[in-house]
Amino acid sequence: MGAGITNFGRREASWKDLVVEAGKALFDDVPNLDKKDVDSFFIGAAQPERWTYQTHVAPLAAELLGIKPRRVVARTESACASGQIAIRYAWLAVASGLSDVAVVVGVEKMNTKFMNLSQTSMMNVGNREFDTAMGLTAPPYFAMVAQRHMHLYGTTEDQMALVREKAGEYASANPYAQFQKKISKEDVLNSRMVAPPLKLLDCSGITDGAAALLITTEEKARKFTDTPVWILGGIQRTMANSINEMGEMSDWLSLRYLAKDVYDLFNITPDDIDVAEVHDCFTISEIMEYEELGFCKKGEGGKFIEEGQSYIGGKVAVNPSGGLLANGHPLGATGVRQAWEMVMQFRGEVPDKRYVSGAELGLAHNLSGMAQFHHIMLYSLNRPREVKFGR
Amino acid sequence: MGAGITNFGRREASWKDLVVEAGKALFDDVPNLDKKDVDSFFIGAAQPERWTYQTHVAPLAAELLGIKPRRVVARTESACASGQIAIRYAWLAVASGLSDVAVVVGVEKMNTKFMNLSQTSMMNVGNREFDTAMGLTAPPYFAMVAQRHMHLYGTTEDQMALVREKAGEYASANPYAQFQKKISKEDVLNSRMVAPPLKLLDCSGITDGAAALLITTEEKARKFTDTPVWILGGIQRTMANSINEMGEMSDWLSLRYLAKDVYDLFNITPDDIDVAEVHDCFTISEIMEYEELGFCKKGEGGKFIEEGQSYIGGKVAVNPSGGLLANGHPLGATGVRQAWEMVMQFRGEVPDKRYVSGAELGLAHNLSGMAQFHHIMLYSLNRPREVKFGR
Repeated sequence: MGAGITNFGRREASWKDLVVEAGKALFDDVPNLDKKDVDSFFIGAAQPERWTYQTHVAPLAAELLGIKPRRVVARTESACASGQIAIRYAWLAVASGLSDVAVVVGVEKMNTKFMNLSQTSMMNVGNREFDTAMGLTAPPYFAMVAQRHMHLYGTTEDQMALVREKAGEYASANPYAQFQKKISKEDVLNSRMVAPPLKLLDCSGITDGAAALLITTEEKARKFTDTPVWILGGIQRTMANSINEMGEMSDWLSLRYLAKDVYDLFNITPDDIDVAEVHDCFTISEIMEYEELGFCKKGEGGKFIEEGQSYIGGKVAVNPSGGLLANGHPLGATGVRQAWEMVMQFRGEVPDKRYVSGAELGLAHNLSGMAQFHHIMLYSLNRPREVKFGR
Repeated sequence: MGAGITNFGRREASWKDLVVEAGKALFDDVPNLDKKDVDSFFIGAAQPERWTYQTHVAPLAAELLGIKPRRVVARTESACASGQIAIRYAWLAVASGLSDVAVVVGVEKMNTKFMNLSQTSMMNVGNREFDTAMGLTAPPYFAMVAQRHMHLYGTTEDQMALVREKAGEYASANPYAQFQKKISKEDVLNSRMVAPPLKLLDCSGITDGAAALLITTEEKARKFTDTPVWILGGIQRTMANSINEMGEMSDWLSLRYLAKDVYDLFNITPDDIDVAEVHDCFTISEIMEYEELGFCKKGEGGKFIEEGQSYIGGKVAVNPSGGLLANGHPLGATGVRQAWEMVMQFRGEVPDKRYVSGAELGLAHNLSGMAQFHHIMLYSLNRPREVKFGR
């Protein structure tokens, strides 16, 4: 894979500008690429039709990038995980042999002059006739998850604040992140309450940004780079969508079973994961994910970070990029940014402070909506064994 | 493939109702299917976030269908071709071995109480900062295509009207179509002018509807049916998006080159196609498609229908379903409806009047936006030769 990224933040740039900027960064990263060889294009974007009044973005973005794909072209949408789904489509297109050279872009322009529209449009993500119509948007939902987790397992606001502190620590060495400032645990605890127990600094941002990848065959990749990064692949799971069908809020069964399927399918264990980019849309999310991904036992996520197990040098380096909390979360871009981070980590092209030395296997996790739907991709420094998916 | 469909039209039903209705029709079509075996789900929908204020529709639709997919789940969007892109993703997921049993749904709810919103939202489909902001929505664009075609090749309004007459003739035997009434050439010519030379009956409708498919492996398909239908596969092409980059309006080069690539890739010729469902969003579109798909020479599309070559019994049966002109065009549903038609044709489960007896190979074509972006899938009654895609 080749990879490119834009600065994340409140950008004075349109979604088109962001696509072009990420594309330029990508094409600069693979100077030997002839754009004429790009035969497929995938774009992950959550709501350009509401935030920028533009749909049918795939052919328009292809034109902006100067490519004329002739095999597979798609825009994928799944709210917060729109980017990873684009990667999965590209992976299958290349793995099947239908495509040789695929470009993936994830993009979102969320900060608009009509900020109230941006905010209320997030209501579209939940079941709007039931859940979000009753006010159950993301902050209150994740707040309830946190409350249940505190009640059942004794997780503390301090432990959640540590997740944000860690994110800021690593993001201080990430020049693309929206929030590069170091944030102390106390800063988090003293920030404005949003939905108890979640405070402002427990939440990720409203962000503009884009990221881009080149996905190709082994043979072609060797022409572009001496250090190709491998996509092992990945899958997704959704077991229920409406909140009343999801059961105990502090169990994310879709993620628990998804992780098990991923480990079985690719014949690995959680212990094999060296670096993980997980979907820390709120601090409690990352704690839940330690558990459901099997990095620690259920209920011990708070202790896991308290003991330093999710820091670089701990059991598994989680979110060395700064995660969503510090990078910000431009919905369609996030999954692609995670893949960009894997490429940079495996190449050793990140500052020492956030470099996971010796990492060989990486996991990228997204959730979308109210954590109804989970998504995992695996990336590797080494050529993987061929996986037959049980057929 | 298994297949199900809803009635198309101005429905007193929400998009959710339409998904459930198409799903029920599909599950009734494959009674031996255990829903627990559905491991993947794909939904094509163009603008639910604008027309129904709901995004993140994939996990919600999965819940409505009572499935809990654990491999690949995606919503795809490409305006008028959103459905075919979902089919392509499902095909790749199954062909790669990652998925065994995939459900595809295409859906669109376009008739809302806020009809002006529905209409103006179509502006999002073009490059809204340039083309559609200048008024270049679909009717004027396709009108200009028709004007150029008339000017260069002598195509007549009569010939265009014949396309609508043929659509109505076949749709009179399609109980799912929005417009089942027979329409004479004179009716078309006498209908209200929309954008010269296109009159009301030269245009497809604003429609609510859904269709669903089951895509699975050969082994599993044999458990569900004695008459499986094969997906050979298909690709897409976009060479330019903005109108000023597209060149001569009466040449759809993206489609011309796409068709050539499809025939090369699958080692067939236009003469091998027995039945084609093509994207007749306007009557002129179907005439353009005869030519660019290679059914006749460039400029001879008008003559092609005048000579009866695109009727059942002619050179190739085009739109025996009644096409978009008579079925209506619920954007996300259309590509899936075309696949449904192929299944019904190959099974011989359509009324005699529109049955393409002896058909073995079918082509489904979509265009999206202002014909910037073209999409083809091939379906077969017979087990295809394995295709290696040149690697």
